Amino acid sequence: MSDVRVIIQRDSEREERVVTTGTTAAELFPGERAVVAARVGGELKDLAYEIADGETVEPVLISSEDGLNILRHSTAHVMAQAVQEIFPEAKLGIGPPVKDGFYYDFDVERPFTPEDLKVIEKRMQEIQKRGQRFSRRVVTDEAAREELADEPYKLELIGIKGAASADDGADVEVGGGELTIYDNLDPKTGELSWRDLCRGPHLPTTRYIPAFKLMRNASAYWRGSEKNKQLQRIYGTAWPTKEELKAHLDFLVEAEKRDHRKLGNELDLFSFPDEVGSGLAVFHPKGGIIRRAMEDYSRRRHEEEGYEFVYTPHATKGKLFEKSGHLDWYADGMYPPMQLDEGVDYYLKPMNCPMHNLIFDARGRSYRELPLRLFEFGTVYRYEKSGVVHGLTRARGFTQDDAHIYCTKEQMADELDSTLTFVLNLLRDYGLTDFYLELSTKDPEKYVGTDEAWEEATETLRQVAERQGLPLVPDPGGAAFYGPKISVQAKDAIGRTWQMSTVQLDFNLPERFELEYTAPDGSKQRPVMIHRALFGSIERFFAVLLEHYAGAFPAWLAPVQAVGIPIGDAHVAYLQEFAAEAKKKGLRVEVDASSDRMQKKIRNHQKLKVPFMILVGDEDMNAGTVSFRYRDGSQENGIPRDQALAKLVDVVQSRVQV
Amino acid sequence: MSDVRVIIQRDSEREERVVTTGTTAAELFPGERAVVAARVGGELKDLAYEIADGETVEPVLISSEDGLNILRHSTAHVMAQAVQEIFPEAKLGIGPPVKDGFYYDFDVERPFTPEDLKVIEKRMQEIQKRGQRFSRRVVTDEAAREELADEPYKLELIGIKGAASADDGADVEVGGGELTIYDNLDPKTGELSWRDLCRGPHLPTTRYIPAFKLMRNASAYWRGSEKNKQLQRIYGTAWPTKEELKAHLDFLVEAEKRDHRKLGNELDLFSFPDEVGSGLAVFHPKGGIIRRAMEDYSRRRHEEEGYEFVYTPHATKGKLFEKSGHLDWYADGMYPPMQLDEGVDYYLKPMNCPMHNLIFDARGRSYRELPLRLFEFGTVYRYEKSGVVHGLTRARGFTQDDAHIYCTKEQMADELDSTLTFVLNLLRDYGLTDFYLELSTKDPEKYVGTDEAWEEATETLRQVAERQGLPLVPDPGGAAFYGPKISVQAKDAIGRTWQMSTVQLDFNLPERFELEYTAPDGSKQRPVMIHRALFGSIERFFAVLLEHYAGAFPAWLAPVQAVGIPIGDAHVAYLQEFAAEAKKKGLRVEVDASSDRMQKKIRNHQKLKVPFMILVGDEDMNAGTVSFRYRDGSQENGIPRDQALAKLVDVVQSRVQV
Repeated sequence: MSDVRVIIQRDSEREERVVTTGTTAAELFPGERAVVAARVGGELKDLAYEIADGETVEPVLISSEDGLNILRHSTAHVMAQAVQEIFPEAKLGIGPPVKDGFYYDFDVERPFTPEDLKVIEKRMQEIQKRGQRFSRRVVTDEAAREELADEPYKLELIGIKGAASADDGADVEVGGGELTIYDNLDPKTGELSWRDLCRGPHLPTTRYIPAFKLMRNASAYWRGSEKNKQLQRIYGTAWPTKEELKAHLDFLVEAEKRDHRKLGNELDLFSFPDEVGSGLAVFHPKGGIIRRAMEDYSRRRHEEEGYEFVYTPHATKGKLFEKSGHLDWYADGMYPPMQLDEGVDYYLKPMNCPMHNLIFDARGRSYRELPLRLFEFGTVYRYEKSGVVHGLTRARGFTQDDAHIYCTKEQMADELDSTLTFVLNLLRDYGLTDFYLELSTKDPEKYVGTDEAWEEATETLRQVAERQGLPLVPDPGGAAFYGPKISVQAKDAIGRTWQMSTVQLDFNLPERFELEYTAPDGSKQRPVMIHRALFGSIERFFAVLLEHYAGAFPAWLAPVQAVGIPIGDAHVAYLQEFAAEAKKKGLRVEVDASSDRMQKKIRNHQKLKVPFMILVGDEDMNAGTVSFRYRDGSQENGIPRDQALAKLVDVVQSRVQV
Repeated sequence: MSDVRVIIQRDSEREERVVTTGTTAAELFPGERAVVAARVGGELKDLAYEIADGETVEPVLISSEDGLNILRHSTAHVMAQAVQEIFPEAKLGIGPPVKDGFYYDFDVERPFTPEDLKVIEKRMQEIQKRGQRFSRRVVTDEAAREELADEPYKLELIGIKGAASADDGADVEVGGGELTIYDNLDPKTGELSWRDLCRGPHLPTTRYIPAFKLMRNASAYWRGSEKNKQLQRIYGTAWPTKEELKAHLDFLVEAEKRDHRKLGNELDLFSFPDEVGSGLAVFHPKGGIIRRAMEDYSRRRHEEEGYEFVYTPHATKGKLFEKSGHLDWYADGMYPPMQLDEGVDYYLKPMNCPMHNLIFDARGRSYRELPLRLFEFGTVYRYEKSGVVHGLTRARGFTQDDAHIYCTKEQMADELDSTLTFVLNLLRDYGLTDFYLELSTKDPEKYVGTDEAWEEATETLRQVAERQGLPLVPDPGGAAFYGPKISVQAKDAIGRTWQMSTVQLDFNLPERFELEYTAPDGSKQRPVMIHRALFGSIERFFAVLLEHYAGAFPAWLAPVQAVGIPIGDAHVAYLQEFAAEAKKKGLRVEVDASSDRMQKKIRNHQKLKVPFMILVGDEDMNAGTVSFRYRDGSQENGIPRDQALAKLVDVVQSRVQV
């Protein structure tokens, strides 16, 4: 028995150790129950993996990204075993880990019912308790085929294992590697209870699964193609602790409550009529007010920052997108063309930039005009596949708050700096305050422009980003081919991250459009071009704010800022007078003079999440005062009318939440 | 020689007379040189027409619409004769009267040059002096073919005379009538100098042509089809007096100066880039400011009037336009479909109404919500033929200030009344003050809804229109099939009439969309629907205002409201401080700190039609004052800064022209 040198790496700590041949990764981390796998020489391995001489081994904790994937993947195996124990005829599809959980697809005679899911979940708990071992075994194609003769989908995967990739998750050995099967073995008898064609790695035993739950079922085409058979998919979730599972389930309930599609309907803000088509929203009057308040404030701030407003059409000859290159590299994202004038293709615009370039180029430009900042609320149309369209957040038509800044090279750093500061402050004004930044840099395989230009621009972006004092996450290779970019990631009230603003340099379009300005020395120079969207899409930002505030918008955005609720009919006129005064000050105030009783009115407007209810009875009327009732049910009584008006104005103008 | 009874009708006066057989129309109006033709039994006839017993004869004055058409048509013949005298190989196309003039098309070897036009005009003057008679002759098809064997286009017209209509003007007998040739005869010898296949009527002689001028030449496809040969067209104009000719030419010079396409370019307001396509405007920053000022004011006024703002997409499934019926009766005006999702046709919207109906129908409606007024700045796309596209006034994409009012039958009259008053006052706010109204009523051949509903609605519209105290012009049969309408016709600064706002009742869409509200008694009722556009198209209204003001917008609409012009460098800072104060008050003020000399700056900003120039030298600076220079060159010196600011604010807020 010879010695084996091993390096144990934990974060930045390295420990060299000598162990005996045949030592498994598990034996390097005795008693560390949180260690569920190992990364050996960069590759994920089961804890049963035997260390070879000179290898570097890192423990993989269950709470790490890798650990969670392994946990969820193993839970998927447990689920598949349970399904096949209960439904022996079920044929296996694939079963990868996904965000927050996992799924597995099955070919079964009928869709699973909620009852089925309960039974399956119960069986999974039993399997978990059995403490079955996950055991890896290398097989030849031939042996695998023989062993999985009853699993037609697995056979198909064996056939295409070279090409298998994204759509069958982690279940198949990708590329030229070995083909492996994982056996689920009884911990005492070693008897085989279930097996799956799988790349692994897996938890050591099913006892390592701390907490899981089945969520829902759905149907899904085999390998994502409508041409294939529809399989039945079960989604589940799994977590390192029972507390985390509960927190996740609570989060889902909260997210469900905040779903902008649900709130949009409840608050009568927008709809997606079937006659119009998915991904194309219709904004109702109340949604229109919020949207306009959002746009108007943005517009005012942009004007103050020296942006100039333009308007461009939604349709254009294809010629423009030939010039810009969009028809080369973005055609798939565009609506199909419409042929006009016997042979000329017109397209809906997927982006506004080419049009803004035409405006820059409409006449000669002098360095004195730079930076030139062209802004448009430009509605664009993108052909998202119907499967990915989702409410307002992934739409087929949406309005960008789109600006393009043309400046000299010398102005670039200052312009990026002030742009990013402006962008972040504006997001804060809308109530998002928790940010980090992402810096997307060059994909060495695919870029235009010189290395020097990229280096300089990237370095400038980095400095600009760092100056904000926010966490900066690198995204190497994540830049578009035409330039590096900073993106702002914002967390909402329940901790979800949304990609918001982007500040993107472009080395490509100024070349393609041959944009020029006259420098002080009379020479023609090419301007630097910065693409910059703050909300990205107004519709999407609308949805983010709607979910962030759970519909309880701060007064400046609320469709109805205050509603007067008379205690009796005698108080209606008094409130209407108050409302008229408020309207003169630009406030959106209504009076509920309906025949409903006061408590019913309060409930109604509570549901509509009106920030201020203004209650008035005899006492207030006689004293010339009003009483405020807030969303949380608290009340402030006997406020003199002038003070009440002043407070409403102040809350709206200062954009605070009440 | 038996007697012939004739009734001579002049306006409402009727005179019965008995004349001898063979009396011509001319002989009924001896010495009345202004009479150039006669309307006999409703049909236009030459003055040489011999009256038959019992006929009613009206004199046609040269200054009447019919008279002008006859004058211009005869002048077209004179031009064609002149062309064939000078270019004997020229083959005749058609030559109808058009607005303000006439044209004639020729098949010639090369386009006419400006020199040619001068020579032709000279020859026309000679022909005019010859005093040739226009003489009508009825011919058989066969005889006409023989006589016009050298005129291939006329032969073609003989062949299709039954079908000949719009595209060959007044030159061919339409329908089953007689085929006629007009000979130009020497007044003395009676010798034939020229002839044309023509329906007539014509002036008695060429001496009846008081004043004419050739305007320009262009090329035009034979019968308007690109499949045919291109002919050469000469446009001319002709008038009852030399003074009217001069006034018309002066008007053209003025209109040319005001052409919005020219001003749009000179003032850097908008462009039509070739890459985008005709009829699709791109608004530059300065045009964007004007447009936004127009929109913002309109929006504010609409909000005050209780309109609610919605947003709807530009593209939709065809399903919506099947429901609305647009695909049945408006498909030709729509862009071709885009096929998405393997087989679903999507269209750009040509109108917003169907979408607004979806919003009305998004939830149950109560009578308490009516009138519901949905407003949208909705950009629509219409497939205008490329030949008729004209700048911003006839575009392929434009934004309607489009509202749809849903109300009860009982509310209809009041709603129409207040709408029309609102519309007219708003147009006045933009500077148009000279109106008349047009009432378009039922086309008996084509309408939906009951006769009673039409009668009631039309009568309501008439009363509403009459209440405005404006001239009301009937337009019988001019209504769309779905309801009667009032349209507002506005005259601009040089007297041109533009159709502006329309207020249109709709009996059709509420039925098709099965729109309903709950009445006080709980029953379901169908609302009345009013379509109402004020500008019609923002782009078109922009063009009308641009031409109306000749680019010299009142300050509230001007992209730059005031520009500071320092007399020397020492005064720049003082002006910048003033400008900063002005900006705080929401004014658009710039300072020209360029190195140009003062006189050059004044010329530059004069050209850009800036309402206020603010001049400052030592004197003003020391005294804490500024001096205004107006567009007309007048000056107002030594105005204390506060007063100057107050004046600027006042001029902008009151929307007056300075």
